[in-house]
Amino acid sequence: MTKDIDQLSINTIKTLAVDSVSAANSGHPGAPLALATLAHAIFQKTKFTPNHPKWPNRDRFVLSNGHACALLYSILFLYGFDYTLDDLKNFRQLNSKTPGHPETPHCPGVEVTTGPLGQGIANAVGIALAQKQFAATYNKPDYPIADARTFCIVGDGCLMEGISSEASSLAGHLQLGNLTVFWDSNKISIDGSTDLAFTEDVPERYRAYGWHVIDVDEENPSLSTLSKAIDEASKVTDKPTFVKIKTTIGIGSEQAGTAAVHGAPLKPDDVKHLKKAIGFDPEQSFVVPSEVTDYFKKSVESKDKQYVEWQKLFKDYSHHYPELAEEINRREDGRLPPDWERFLPSYKPSDKAAATRKLSETVLGALTPVIPELIGGAADLTPSTLTRTQNAVDFQPPSTGLGDYSGRYIRFGVREHAMGAMMNGIAAFGSNFKVFGGTFLNFVSYAAGAVRLSAISQLPIIWVGTHDSVGLGEDGPTHQPIETLAHLRAIPNLSVWRPADGNEVSAAYKAAISSVSTPHVLALTRQGVPHLEGSSIEKASKGGYVLVEAQDPDIILVSSGSEVSIAVEAAKLLGKNGTRARVVSMPSFFAFDQQSEKYRFSVLPDGVPILSIEVMSPFGWSNYSHVQFGVSRFGFSAKYTDIYDYLEFTPEGISSRANKTIDFYKGSKLLSPLSKPFYPQSFDLFTHGR
Amino acid sequence: MTKDIDQLSINTIKTLAVDSVSAANSGHPGAPLALATLAHAIFQKTKFTPNHPKWPNRDRFVLSNGHACALLYSILFLYGFDYTLDDLKNFRQLNSKTPGHPETPHCPGVEVTTGPLGQGIANAVGIALAQKQFAATYNKPDYPIADARTFCIVGDGCLMEGISSEASSLAGHLQLGNLTVFWDSNKISIDGSTDLAFTEDVPERYRAYGWHVIDVDEENPSLSTLSKAIDEASKVTDKPTFVKIKTTIGIGSEQAGTAAVHGAPLKPDDVKHLKKAIGFDPEQSFVVPSEVTDYFKKSVESKDKQYVEWQKLFKDYSHHYPELAEEINRREDGRLPPDWERFLPSYKPSDKAAATRKLSETVLGALTPVIPELIGGAADLTPSTLTRTQNAVDFQPPSTGLGDYSGRYIRFGVREHAMGAMMNGIAAFGSNFKVFGGTFLNFVSYAAGAVRLSAISQLPIIWVGTHDSVGLGEDGPTHQPIETLAHLRAIPNLSVWRPADGNEVSAAYKAAISSVSTPHVLALTRQGVPHLEGSSIEKASKGGYVLVEAQDPDIILVSSGSEVSIAVEAAKLLGKNGTRARVVSMPSFFAFDQQSEKYRFSVLPDGVPILSIEVMSPFGWSNYSHVQFGVSRFGFSAKYTDIYDYLEFTPEGISSRANKTIDFYKGSKLLSPLSKPFYPQSFDLFTHGR
Repeated sequence: MTKDIDQLSINTIKTLAVDSVSAANSGHPGAPLALATLAHAIFQKTKFTPNHPKWPNRDRFVLSNGHACALLYSILFLYGFDYTLDDLKNFRQLNSKTPGHPETPHCPGVEVTTGPLGQGIANAVGIALAQKQFAATYNKPDYPIADARTFCIVGDGCLMEGISSEASSLAGHLQLGNLTVFWDSNKISIDGSTDLAFTEDVPERYRAYGWHVIDVDEENPSLSTLSKAIDEASKVTDKPTFVKIKTTIGIGSEQAGTAAVHGAPLKPDDVKHLKKAIGFDPEQSFVVPSEVTDYFKKSVESKDKQYVEWQKLFKDYSHHYPELAEEINRREDGRLPPDWERFLPSYKPSDKAAATRKLSETVLGALTPVIPELIGGAADLTPSTLTRTQNAVDFQPPSTGLGDYSGRYIRFGVREHAMGAMMNGIAAFGSNFKVFGGTFLNFVSYAAGAVRLSAISQLPIIWVGTHDSVGLGEDGPTHQPIETLAHLRAIPNLSVWRPADGNEVSAAYKAAISSVSTPHVLALTRQGVPHLEGSSIEKASKGGYVLVEAQDPDIILVSSGSEVSIAVEAAKLLGKNGTRARVVSMPSFFAFDQQSEKYRFSVLPDGVPILSIEVMSPFGWSNYSHVQFGVSRFGFSAKYTDIYDYLEFTPEGISSRANKTIDFYKGSKLLSPLSKPFYPQSFDLFTHGR
Repeated sequence: MTKDIDQLSINTIKTLAVDSVSAANSGHPGAPLALATLAHAIFQKTKFTPNHPKWPNRDRFVLSNGHACALLYSILFLYGFDYTLDDLKNFRQLNSKTPGHPETPHCPGVEVTTGPLGQGIANAVGIALAQKQFAATYNKPDYPIADARTFCIVGDGCLMEGISSEASSLAGHLQLGNLTVFWDSNKISIDGSTDLAFTEDVPERYRAYGWHVIDVDEENPSLSTLSKAIDEASKVTDKPTFVKIKTTIGIGSEQAGTAAVHGAPLKPDDVKHLKKAIGFDPEQSFVVPSEVTDYFKKSVESKDKQYVEWQKLFKDYSHHYPELAEEINRREDGRLPPDWERFLPSYKPSDKAAATRKLSETVLGALTPVIPELIGGAADLTPSTLTRTQNAVDFQPPSTGLGDYSGRYIRFGVREHAMGAMMNGIAAFGSNFKVFGGTFLNFVSYAAGAVRLSAISQLPIIWVGTHDSVGLGEDGPTHQPIETLAHLRAIPNLSVWRPADGNEVSAAYKAAISSVSTPHVLALTRQGVPHLEGSSIEKASKGGYVLVEAQDPDIILVSSGSEVSIAVEAAKLLGKNGTRARVVSMPSFFAFDQQSEKYRFSVLPDGVPILSIEVMSPFGWSNYSHVQFGVSRFGFSAKYTDIYDYLEFTPEGISSRANKTIDFYKGSKLLSPLSKPFYPQSFDLFTHGR
């Protein structure tokens, strides 16, 4: 009987998914049909409850082949997550709960946004890492309050993407025994057979990464076979497990096993054929047999029991370890430690000049002891990004003797894309994790696919992007960002900071660490910069502010980062000739855009020509300036001072352009570049995600 | 004696590299010391000559760990490529021939720009592919005019990057027997020991990819050992070969085997210690013993003989196969087939509306038979990008039965980053290859690291980026570009085209295929667009032009791609109320910026308010418009018509914003946004690369 109700449940999942795709007349029916049994097995075996969807000790499930989301929505609906049948019927419709790829935070029960291939498995590695770090930090003898696991399904496409190789290699090194990945090997991708481009021996590759590999013989394996594989994986605790499953895409359809069932609805007759074959009424859609409703209701009751048991365990734990329990509760509430902000360093102009990457190191050094949920690392550039603080412990398998699982410094290796997606996974795990990743700003581009998903998913992760301009010097144009900030600033819900001195670095971290739903990129210098007269954490927190005031200015110089102090010198030079220049420091467009209109116009008013100065692509600066002094070519391999001189990013080069700008606009009634007849489009410019 | 002169040559290479780094007081001495013997072995065994550096049948060498470039410059100097000792002394100085990472086309004898890790090995896979395709196309019995091989050195960092996994998996599938990759396994990366993050079994991974693997036991192997490995690799013709070599980074230095010798000059005493140990005068720098000069002179003489023999072979070939020889000569001269442009389709407004991706398919169908050097493929999105033309033959190992090596359609698999870097390699091979790669525009971001190197290296490759906006519809925000065009347009020497109709698609391909030193990205729609009254290939080739004229216009609407036809409807709507609107179609900022000032101002003159319309981030449009109507949020999963309506990208939504814009500027004397006191910086805005 159990078997029958299981099969009926699986068939219900299949028909709901197929009906969703047919109703939308768009979507991917093939994978849901092939994977319904596996999904049912995983959801049966895992710890979660729709009644407490944010339970920190729940097992996590990631559908890396996100195009199969009709499967996910169907099973989440049956388990009683916040979906109705109408939501399934509105699959892929405007502002529905059931978009074409699963998104967080908008889809109940979905752990991470997937669809862009390879991201999900890298997210899963990050989630598993976070689970291990949380467990090693808080578990106590007899109190295994954190013992959850992560399960992930990947398709062929995910495994072709380099990001999955990066994340899988690192997961093997880190011996993440709490991670199980199922490979849906259906031999079909969009172009046709995987024989066209993907003929490597994947299980051998995963063995080479140090994973435990289960190669399931049975084609389209049964529920019991899959349940056994899950049990075997759960017994292997010192290695991640990779399970190869051979499936037939679109099984049950007349076009089963072909690319035709991948990305297009089944033909109406085919749907009928499929339903008939599994004993469903071919004329009806979105049918849920009452036994199935009852079955999932009972399943949730038993899962709720697991939750109640955990609550009891945590209650006892709280008696024995009140401080730790309070810390966990604080983190689960999303509250940072009280007064953490007072540990942010502030500076006076007399303080020693320093590179902003060095000032970032100081901030991390001050906050790491204070904020236990602050975790991070670098992509094999630790000595350059200065992201590792004194006395930091590496997150490493204890057996390596290089650290332990309670460590908060992650050696990502030269794997920027996986680092970005793993940061997304760590943030998605929750428990208020504040995660940072360091690399050269130029190489954040390697992770562009993950960066935009941080912003879509509203995950407040932090990129520490050092060597942020041609100022990196001798390494040359291959390492010097030109377009990078234009790229990042154009991403909705991504806050880019390019601080000019110590107070602005503290302001950048203040914004990044207190962020709840916006990722941040900090662009930091390799070269030293002075601490500026007139800067403060409070002023810089507004994103843009008047650094040097001038009575009734002839021109406003607006700049960011390492160019601000040069602009200040230029203003002095102009002053010598009786030209009055206001200097505005603009560390963050994003933060500035969120200030009141009154404030923004007080900084960049009508009637004064505004010249922006930034030693990279001027693209986008015309939102804040009338004239842009930037760099529209690639950089140079040379001492950075030679490069700045050659590009004329000097007080003289700036002041001469300031004079040209003043002459150019002499007599014309200038509007502030902020002054527009309407927002760039009909939505709030600052919409976060959706 | 041979051995002695070899050792003396190797030691000379080492000391020149170390002296270069010391002179710059910046750079990477560790790898050159460890790899001098290997580089000497490879250059001894390979076919090339400094007297004919562009010999198409030369063997290619790629230094994927580009930071070791002091090694490369030293050996190229000794072989008589266009470097002087002063060039080595100017290592890492402004505008020298010897930048901090090797760059093309600026560094003589350097095949590809490397430094960003993982790119070089993927370039090498592309070069090897091009060699095989060229050979299969032109070789004849008894006339092996193309039999060159590709050799590549990679470090640990390259092998951690996902791009190398993507390229290596594909190289294995394609059975590129002409490719040999040497892994410099020195167990050291910037963070320290590779035990920190990179403990996988790399040779096993390469076996899983289908490579022949040679695991050299000997530590810091001798020249003869390495020569034998090269010979063994050359015998394996049905698989790429991966050679693992265990080296000691900075061998000979007192800090050998530590991360300290990776990225910083040796201490002066250490340099002396090193020179003394190998019999060089510790007090002298940049010394080249005369025997070494003689040795390399003789080596070049024998290499020149190989070139002369090849010339003789090609002369005979030309007699027997005059048409093929003429074609080869044409390609080597960089001349496209005469009259190729007349095969570009042109359209009338009465022609059937079509998606620009479909119109792209028509162009590729027309040009593929005409241009034998046109080659390309897609990242497993062939049915979506429509990049495969009728009767196309896949580039596949004949043994697979799926195609052959003369095939011109490449199945890249879901590997965008490797596709980008392989396109760079195919273009770098030369012979006028025009290579395209198709994927969704949004996923060009996965390849951002390779895209900027196309532009730096001045490689005229072509991205076919379809589904170019929220207009892709149901797949939703994870697949819909918002920031993508801002990112790409901000890259120097990258020409982005977003054509609005058939004639503009032809213009885009005309620009892309005739390009010599600028890569192109074509942004193409999923949805249908009408053929526009007033468009033509000639007009569109200017990048921006007046599509709909209006006498003494009240406003100019400037737009691109799928929004242009909506802007035309908006202009009609405005006309009904007596408002005169000019419509400008702007398919390419890059092409428009290259037109004369007179022309540009004739399109976007002073005195008229200009409203830009593009259904993505407005970032950057303010260079061409006073007001921007764009999208500053992520997209939606829905029918594209619902999305356009919701975002108000409709004739009504545009005309209402046009009226607001006219009212806003009423009475004010407006300058054209093109009107600036100076170029964004002191260099020509359109500098290509450097």
